[in-house]
Amino acid sequence: MAELIDGKQLAKTVNAQTKRAVTELKTRGVNPKLIVILVGEDKASQIYVRNKQRKAVQLGIISETTRLPEDVSQAELLKLIDQYNHDDTVNGVMVQSPLPRQIDEAAVTRAILPTKDVDGFNPENVGQLYSNSNLNFPVSCTPKGIMSMLKAYQVTLAGANAVIVGRSNIVGRPMAALLLNASATVTVVHSQTKDMRAYTRNADILIVATGIAHLIKGEDIKPGATVIDVGMNRDENGKLTGDVDFDSAEPVAGKITPVPGGVGPMTIATLMQQTVELTKWSE
Amino acid sequence: MAELIDGKQLAKTVNAQTKRAVTELKTRGVNPKLIVILVGEDKASQIYVRNKQRKAVQLGIISETTRLPEDVSQAELLKLIDQYNHDDTVNGVMVQSPLPRQIDEAAVTRAILPTKDVDGFNPENVGQLYSNSNLNFPVSCTPKGIMSMLKAYQVTLAGANAVIVGRSNIVGRPMAALLLNASATVTVVHSQTKDMRAYTRNADILIVATGIAHLIKGEDIKPGATVIDVGMNRDENGKLTGDVDFDSAEPVAGKITPVPGGVGPMTIATLMQQTVELTKWSE
Repeated sequence: MAELIDGKQLAKTVNAQTKRAVTELKTRGVNPKLIVILVGEDKASQIYVRNKQRKAVQLGIISETTRLPEDVSQAELLKLIDQYNHDDTVNGVMVQSPLPRQIDEAAVTRAILPTKDVDGFNPENVGQLYSNSNLNFPVSCTPKGIMSMLKAYQVTLAGANAVIVGRSNIVGRPMAALLLNASATVTVVHSQTKDMRAYTRNADILIVATGIAHLIKGEDIKPGATVIDVGMNRDENGKLTGDVDFDSAEPVAGKITPVPGGVGPMTIATLMQQTVELTKWSE
Repeated sequence: MAELIDGKQLAKTVNAQTKRAVTELKTRGVNPKLIVILVGEDKASQIYVRNKQRKAVQLGIISETTRLPEDVSQAELLKLIDQYNHDDTVNGVMVQSPLPRQIDEAAVTRAILPTKDVDGFNPENVGQLYSNSNLNFPVSCTPKGIMSMLKAYQVTLAGANAVIVGRSNIVGRPMAALLLNASATVTVVHSQTKDMRAYTRNADILIVATGIAHLIKGEDIKPGATVIDVGMNRDENGKLTGDVDFDSAEPVAGKITPVPGGVGPMTIATLMQQTVELTKWSE
């Protein structure tokens, strides 16, 4: 029986801290403001963006969503970002993924001012992360939220054997950097890895971010390991399910995140937390 | 009996290519120019800088070394860098490490214009590397040179189990990114890793960059592995020796770099190569 890492509960705690910080900023006349840019009509994106805006409003953060048509040009999008970059009332800017084909996503991440880059995707911020910089800089919210979970559940990081399944720029790679900066021994495995399970079975900390439902089963987990499931897959009944087969994993793991109610709520809580951090850092 | 990875010979090939590229640029009136800034009187630094300048001159690259006193202020150093950033005749700028205590090394790496950052240490370039960007950007020369060696000796990277010993910003971390981008399974082990040898013994590709003479012995190596020794230590007789105990490692490894004559010559050859690349990219 693993201890459940309750992301929903922890997100509440983080959100309460954020709300207090916002209140405190407002007494000084500072009003944190987050801009979300949504391109096109993607259904899932609309839900994500609505959830972000709702959470921001709950916490006292001014949130504006700017909607652009599916066929918006790259130049128009970059021009809009530039306007927000120059707008002193704006503290955080993010562009919801995925973007339509005519838009170069890397150019968009480069365009957002590093000091307003609430998603932490700008190369300059990525570089600070990988250089283990001691400056203030934003970090991709999902892995940053996972670090908060590991800390809250007192998981030992220094010297732990951490294995990350998946090498995306949003989760796998920044997760590797954060864990290495925290002195874990870090392995990144991915689709081209031979015998992935030989690695996962030795992991003290296992982070799974592949988008493949139930890729990791109980037999792939070291007894007592901390298992973090970043997966958000829909099963045949439309039910949300993770990259880890919870039923077989839970009896083996020491600590484990559920899906839903694990990483998901912490990602959005971290986005709000980071909006406030960017606001404070820019003061 | 391992195959020797002859860095000295490969550096000659790379240098010959660089020399041809420089000649070709000159026929178009473009003269690649490298600025090396040397602060203080560190003996080893003076030798490194002299070797770089000599190699640059051999290859037709204009090389200027600017010497600053040990007690130079951070402001003066940054002002000098800014001058070179704005000088259109300058293609590459580097500041020789180590720097005296009053200088913030991270601030120096941030100050060099990313497009002239021949050492590849600027966070923006580091971020491009870790994001596996498809743009042109400079990369730390030692790991980039190692990638050239692995390619020249036809070492299979995709799916290989690569283990990097050491997590410095100059070698270990960028090496991890390069190998991950090349689809190796990558583990970074370091001083806080428990049972380092359990990792090194399973490595198909083992990169050792710790500064600890003879840390890795034959028994720590998987038979047939490719072993890259980044170490440059002086033994009790003043002789240059690596982080790998060559005598016991060589019979076990499949391919191995000697020290000296391995990674060292490739680092300087890569610096020259990258100076020319920066020149071309800025055209």
